[in-house]
Amino acid sequence: MSRDVRRAVPHVVRLGLLGLGSVGAAFAELVDDDHEGIDRRVGLKLEITRIAVHDTTKSRGKLRRLERITGDAAAVVSDPEVDVVVELVGGIEPARSLILAALRAGKPVVTANKELLAQDGPELFAVAESAGRPLLFEAAVAGAIPLVRALRVSLVGERVRRILGIVNGTTNYILSEMSEKGVSYASALETAQRLGYAERNPSADVGGHDAAAKAAILASIAFSADVVATDVYREGIEAIETADIEFAHRLGYEVKLLAIAEQLDAEEGSPMIAVRVHPAMVPVEHPLATIRGPFNAVFVEGDSAGELMLFGRGAGGRPTASAVLGDVIDAAGSLGLEGGLRFAPRHRAEIRPIGELRAQYYVAIDVSDRPGVLAAVAAVFGQHNVSVRSMEQVGLGDEARLVFITHLARESDLQATLGDLARLDAVRRVGGLIRVVGQEREEATPA
Amino acid sequence: MSRDVRRAVPHVVRLGLLGLGSVGAAFAELVDDDHEGIDRRVGLKLEITRIAVHDTTKSRGKLRRLERITGDAAAVVSDPEVDVVVELVGGIEPARSLILAALRAGKPVVTANKELLAQDGPELFAVAESAGRPLLFEAAVAGAIPLVRALRVSLVGERVRRILGIVNGTTNYILSEMSEKGVSYASALETAQRLGYAERNPSADVGGHDAAAKAAILASIAFSADVVATDVYREGIEAIETADIEFAHRLGYEVKLLAIAEQLDAEEGSPMIAVRVHPAMVPVEHPLATIRGPFNAVFVEGDSAGELMLFGRGAGGRPTASAVLGDVIDAAGSLGLEGGLRFAPRHRAEIRPIGELRAQYYVAIDVSDRPGVLAAVAAVFGQHNVSVRSMEQVGLGDEARLVFITHLARESDLQATLGDLARLDAVRRVGGLIRVVGQEREEATPA
Repeated sequence: MSRDVRRAVPHVVRLGLLGLGSVGAAFAELVDDDHEGIDRRVGLKLEITRIAVHDTTKSRGKLRRLERITGDAAAVVSDPEVDVVVELVGGIEPARSLILAALRAGKPVVTANKELLAQDGPELFAVAESAGRPLLFEAAVAGAIPLVRALRVSLVGERVRRILGIVNGTTNYILSEMSEKGVSYASALETAQRLGYAERNPSADVGGHDAAAKAAILASIAFSADVVATDVYREGIEAIETADIEFAHRLGYEVKLLAIAEQLDAEEGSPMIAVRVHPAMVPVEHPLATIRGPFNAVFVEGDSAGELMLFGRGAGGRPTASAVLGDVIDAAGSLGLEGGLRFAPRHRAEIRPIGELRAQYYVAIDVSDRPGVLAAVAAVFGQHNVSVRSMEQVGLGDEARLVFITHLARESDLQATLGDLARLDAVRRVGGLIRVVGQEREEATPA
Repeated sequence: MSRDVRRAVPHVVRLGLLGLGSVGAAFAELVDDDHEGIDRRVGLKLEITRIAVHDTTKSRGKLRRLERITGDAAAVVSDPEVDVVVELVGGIEPARSLILAALRAGKPVVTANKELLAQDGPELFAVAESAGRPLLFEAAVAGAIPLVRALRVSLVGERVRRILGIVNGTTNYILSEMSEKGVSYASALETAQRLGYAERNPSADVGGHDAAAKAAILASIAFSADVVATDVYREGIEAIETADIEFAHRLGYEVKLLAIAEQLDAEEGSPMIAVRVHPAMVPVEHPLATIRGPFNAVFVEGDSAGELMLFGRGAGGRPTASAVLGDVIDAAGSLGLEGGLRFAPRHRAEIRPIGELRAQYYVAIDVSDRPGVLAAVAAVFGQHNVSVRSMEQVGLGDEARLVFITHLARESDLQATLGDLARLDAVRRVGGLIRVVGQEREEATPA
């Protein structure tokens, strides 16, 4: 075959690896152990020539050729023997400075750093663009699932309406345990911690911070917009009770922590988008409701493509390293190309605040069961134009709970309703608030 | 922003469209109607400058600028005002010659032509490679699902073990109807025809030919191998009976027509692969079992990435046109690039024949229920080293049916068993044979 005739890509591609944590170590192992297989499949000889670590004295297990290891990450980036920089350090600094230095030195960069991209993505992408060098980050969202490239390349011409993602395996594992075994949040969290699905300090996951960073990245690539983590409305799963999930089942829903990125008005020049992370009631027949355990899945609603879903492992050293490897090979393909890379134009997005969005709501209110209570509660809903689709009372006397599902209502109206309800004498507690997601279109004409 | 500084891609990209059937018309409408939106999202002005059709006298509905239409496809390909050729004619010739001419003229080509790629892919890819021009075909397999790029780029470094695909919406619709409503194959086919999911002459779909072409393409991109449609073992769904599906349900399975591409020995230089299309019993808890109606889904088992699934619309004018659009934008990005494109090396694959593969089997045998029949039947299984996992008799007397599930067995042994069974006096008919797929690992130590 004549495949070498026009190839300008060097056959040996030398990688500088920054960071040797679980993903870094898995990536090093993958490349070291399978470099012949990769060469056979891809036609490129990948070689990790330098590895920067924080602590050079730490034992490195099975890693070979320890003489590659250095404590000087900046020297790895500037080393003329490094063609592509792989940043798996995580966190903001020094990762940010190292990536900027690599791009400015004309080197493609592959990263899995969701936190950094969600905070400083706009700056990093602008520098990549003016340097004409790729900054690839398939591993930063949904691990091994080939989602980022799907949105950045395959669906780049598509009018994406909405993305619904289960992008945090820890919370999906906890909610699956609660749903399948009826256990409490605390007990499910403990199991997740014991199995290594949750950290000792789980707040980044259960508080929705990890999912919010990923939501910002998803929104920015789906809508070519500058969206950062602080643009994302965020609620975690800490307040979800077993009773909420039981109710969800009775009503035909599963409770999932969703990252939602939505284009509200695709026709105008500056896109108006909404980005949020919160627990949601998802109809059991929706594909996302079937995603159990520590898996991730992302559901895309496109104007022409229709509904798509990508499903797989969202975390773990080897799956994440696999995504990094795909990016490294893609980046290697850009070496030796003249003429720069094409970048989609990016817009400063206008983010619509959560208060202006409309949804259906599940609301649980603990009340003292006295005559007239329901009328008083219903009156508050009515005063704020929140129309009730169904109501059910569970328990009696001082243990009574009223559970409402509303029609589509404006979030600010719903919040005002909850505020007024909390001030009623008979209301002991305004408990669960869970938005219903995934069947909005059936709700087009609320009664 | 400085995004124009290094851009070498012409801002206006002129497309030559070959074919104006359902996909071609949807693509033309998408580009004509949304070219401003595409420019805003992607930074490229797409313009369909010429359109070749077979019959220039036919009415073209809503299409604007009819002066673009010509009957001379070769002139469109060679027109210097055409930068990228979009082949949506289908079939072998003249599509093949037109694509070759475009590539040799240095023009990127986008096609949705699964039949041609499955027959002449090796030649077409070799020409694309030596011309250094992309030949993109996301729309040829699984419609709008961004699968081809996932396998060709994101997972190119991955050791893919196996791909299981529901890649034909017609047959999945028919099997879903049979499964959910208990109707016969004939009745489900009739419904599918009435709803436009099946052609008047349905044999390309129900006979598995369409799925076999896609299986060849999937195998060739997943394993960088030259695989053509005639390499694919193929069975359709015409022989599936309602009773088979009822049995599947009782045993915890759904019946699906699967395209299966498998790497049998990844360690050797020349990959040994198996590619086949046949109905399969899929465990109900497997993600593929939940795919209903005319949808497509592809399940990928990778060494590092683990299990992935991509799901969406596999056919239809607009979803397919969406996939074509993504490829067109990707191809446009290669315009003006010097240095050629990188191509993964391709191997001549060794295809292992179906007879040498191992599977579990569901076998239904109609017998005359006489004393000793079961013993005679069981003896035949034993003679050929096919171990039975479970047996059940339904019906009595001359209406009796024996249903077997085997342990893992060699296909040639199973076929020899069936041949001998058919020669037994008491056996009236050897009916359904359905392979069990998706839980092979649980079956590692057959009794």
